[in-house]
Amino acid sequence: MRGYFELSDVLSDDAVGGVRRFLGEIGDAVFKKGAPRGKEDEAARLISWDVRGNRFYVEVESGRYVRAHVAFVRLRNALAEFLGSRFGLGVRGSRVEEYVLEFELDREPLEPVNVLFAKDVRFDGRKVTILLEDLDDVALERNYPDRIIGRVREKVARQFVSGKGEFTRVVRRSNKGVERYVLKEDPTDLAIRFGWVKEYPATGVWQIMPPMAALIRAMEKLIVDEVAKPLGFQEVMMPRLIPLEVEYRKGHFGIANEIIWACPPVSRDPKDFEDLVDYVEITGGPPPAEFLREKLRPPLYGLSYAQCEPFYEMFHRETVDLDALEEEPIKFYDRNGPTYRWESGGVRGLERLNEFHRVEFVFLSTPRKCIEIRDSILERTERIVDEVFDLEYRVDATTAVYLEHAGKMEEEGGGDFVKTYDLTAILPFQTKSRPEAELEIASFHVHTDFYAKRFHFRDKKRRTVFTGCAGLGPSRFAYVFLVRYGFDFENWPNEIKKYIGEKLPEPPRMLTWPKG
Amino acid sequence: MRGYFELSDVLSDDAVGGVRRFLGEIGDAVFKKGAPRGKEDEAARLISWDVRGNRFYVEVESGRYVRAHVAFVRLRNALAEFLGSRFGLGVRGSRVEEYVLEFELDREPLEPVNVLFAKDVRFDGRKVTILLEDLDDVALERNYPDRIIGRVREKVARQFVSGKGEFTRVVRRSNKGVERYVLKEDPTDLAIRFGWVKEYPATGVWQIMPPMAALIRAMEKLIVDEVAKPLGFQEVMMPRLIPLEVEYRKGHFGIANEIIWACPPVSRDPKDFEDLVDYVEITGGPPPAEFLREKLRPPLYGLSYAQCEPFYEMFHRETVDLDALEEEPIKFYDRNGPTYRWESGGVRGLERLNEFHRVEFVFLSTPRKCIEIRDSILERTERIVDEVFDLEYRVDATTAVYLEHAGKMEEEGGGDFVKTYDLTAILPFQTKSRPEAELEIASFHVHTDFYAKRFHFRDKKRRTVFTGCAGLGPSRFAYVFLVRYGFDFENWPNEIKKYIGEKLPEPPRMLTWPKG
Repeated sequence: MRGYFELSDVLSDDAVGGVRRFLGEIGDAVFKKGAPRGKEDEAARLISWDVRGNRFYVEVESGRYVRAHVAFVRLRNALAEFLGSRFGLGVRGSRVEEYVLEFELDREPLEPVNVLFAKDVRFDGRKVTILLEDLDDVALERNYPDRIIGRVREKVARQFVSGKGEFTRVVRRSNKGVERYVLKEDPTDLAIRFGWVKEYPATGVWQIMPPMAALIRAMEKLIVDEVAKPLGFQEVMMPRLIPLEVEYRKGHFGIANEIIWACPPVSRDPKDFEDLVDYVEITGGPPPAEFLREKLRPPLYGLSYAQCEPFYEMFHRETVDLDALEEEPIKFYDRNGPTYRWESGGVRGLERLNEFHRVEFVFLSTPRKCIEIRDSILERTERIVDEVFDLEYRVDATTAVYLEHAGKMEEEGGGDFVKTYDLTAILPFQTKSRPEAELEIASFHVHTDFYAKRFHFRDKKRRTVFTGCAGLGPSRFAYVFLVRYGFDFENWPNEIKKYIGEKLPEPPRMLTWPKG
Repeated sequence: MRGYFELSDVLSDDAVGGVRRFLGEIGDAVFKKGAPRGKEDEAARLISWDVRGNRFYVEVESGRYVRAHVAFVRLRNALAEFLGSRFGLGVRGSRVEEYVLEFELDREPLEPVNVLFAKDVRFDGRKVTILLEDLDDVALERNYPDRIIGRVREKVARQFVSGKGEFTRVVRRSNKGVERYVLKEDPTDLAIRFGWVKEYPATGVWQIMPPMAALIRAMEKLIVDEVAKPLGFQEVMMPRLIPLEVEYRKGHFGIANEIIWACPPVSRDPKDFEDLVDYVEITGGPPPAEFLREKLRPPLYGLSYAQCEPFYEMFHRETVDLDALEEEPIKFYDRNGPTYRWESGGVRGLERLNEFHRVEFVFLSTPRKCIEIRDSILERTERIVDEVFDLEYRVDATTAVYLEHAGKMEEEGGGDFVKTYDLTAILPFQTKSRPEAELEIASFHVHTDFYAKRFHFRDKKRRTVFTGCAGLGPSRFAYVFLVRYGFDFENWPNEIKKYIGEKLPEPPRMLTWPKG
């Protein structure tokens, strides 16, 4: 590694002599500290140093135990103290001009990988050589080099995992059979034909007409009455605009490709938009999206994807009392309007949406309590799906949601309890958007202290703080309910009818719509 | 005006002769058609024509009555027919190379204005000269030149209107007096201190904690029970993502500077985001917004600003039967989660928000019915504000919302009925964000057939179709309610308490928050 320290002034000959003596005295300790006994040879070594103007150039090499950039920062600090007290000189900053990192992987990569900040990444069997240039103080203090090595290791490890690296283990199955479902086909076309929904010029987004709105609201009330209230959950209204720093803490940049992002206008001054308005008024149509883009600031928010992002942010850098929260855990639910996903192609039916409804449960307490709460939400939801909806379904244990939402992988069997359960309704047909004849309609999670760490909240006695969440989707509940019971209100169970009244509201009638 | 027609082949000498005779015969009629009798001299004139290769060049001049570009298109069509039938030649396209527009304004502009597509705009007293270059077929067929003149006239007219060009006329005042309001100051600080809301790292967006969520939900239920249901409104769920074409039809590009816009990712492929994830993992922080912007497509949607945008889209290009809709008008309401505005600076309190709640009423019927429905919503809302909230308030007639939302102006006294009423609560203090001691909490609109025209829906017998909307804000209702009754649940009126229960839910307790 080659780099330099920028000094506040030129070094006098006297000072150079002083530095030479100083390095002779202390150099060894600085470079070898932290290396195991007997392995001091594999710590760092100062190869050469040189002074030109007010720059102090060094060349450092290291073995396995003290990384060159760590030795470099240590040397800078020692030198700053020595020069400051003896010659009244300061170290203004430092820069690594060139840094060659060499390390070994566990397995030979299947193909080369690249990494941001690296000038070059070379592979020779299991050996990796990374060339870094031009690292500043921030890069050194935040330890970019080790994180770069970590990223390369992760990317290579991923090559040996097939698919998304998800695992799934069936926990329970109800085997009622789908024969008694009223519909044998996807309800989307019928819902359009009957005017329950209307097409809208945005993929995966629908106009939800009175009968469908009534059904979705009934699902929501059922969830509130049968799950939220009996378990003591309180309603909150969590923002749907998620600032980038919250997205970061949540770990969502790992799934930035599935999020819709929001940009404010460049200014509130109509003058800045005058040519855009000219375009619209003169051409008689919307502006090209590229033209509008020029009028926007870079993204400021993501549109809420998980719905629970703001919950962890509530506790950002706060301290809680787990003695009190063991007694009375924090239990909130949110149904503050739709949330958003950018789904991959093939969003054709009502079962997979870019804008959709979910009742989100969030909780915070001790590990034991969080697992207990999660399990009780699952139990009550299962009862709805089994007894009220009378569906065939399956409960799976699967990859922890907090890892999936951070774009990470998990090996099966990590830890002593299940992090994520999915509840999946079995369907008598393949859905419009996917090849499976089933639909996940709810999921139930314990996050361990993953978000406590990322959002820096803690217990007053530093005990482990757990969080959890569960998402129950009224949009998907309504979908599977229609498959089971059909569109005829008379045949619906009373547990649902009671939320709607004597009869279903009707779609608006136009002469040209609905076409059914 | 100079331009050419692109022919499918080179003209033979024979054909050139034929064209010369043809122009001699019909030229005059083509250029003068539509000019008033006796004003034929002020129609268009063909100055010269010339054939080079397969381009037919023309120079056209016009007076007041037949614009040069109209004459140019007429000539192209006539020539196409003649050349097609006589010589088997087609006109492939046309292009105006240079076009000088001259016209007079009613008043001399205060300062020069520019307009998109114009190479140059010059003013000499009331006389305007605009130079256009390079207009293609689309520009001619959609009549860009006249629209460009219209834009210049509009921009100059705006110079003579002070402010936003709004007018306001007080219709009614309740003079109860603000002395008996419980709070004498903005409730925002107290709401934070008591833990009813929590700050969130996004301007004008708040975490709404259980007591405040309960109050907002109570306001929503009050609106549904006292306004929506008795007037026969049915619930729908309207999308919050508004595609650009719908924004265009709604006229919202005139207020693009107040809308938050949404961009999907460039792709769903994680490979395209690998360097972004590298950045986040290596630096340990969110990426610069500029870096994220590179990963996004141009804007695809605006976030719903008016809440009612999708309602008009429901009827896009549809036909309705006003005989039926006179009997039973279409009456919907929507409370499908928050909507969004990019408010100007100084969004500091709970009264002015970038993400907020509103119950939106929308209706469609005959003119008479729409005015009647609008008035009945106003009447019932006034009763709530007067009798339940016991507030001092004012009702104003003001600029039509459909014009304001299109960034347009209106002169006072346009038409024979009021298009827009605002309902404003009087406060005993200036709000955090604005100098006024008052807050608009609801508004009530009839749009005439403005949206019927823009969204191209019509009655089967071509009778005039009206629409209307009204927005009642539970967020703002909650704010003024707190000012009137304070934070002590015991002192609230039963009409509100009945929606909440025995007691208010409590904020989450942390050791470090709330600080009050």
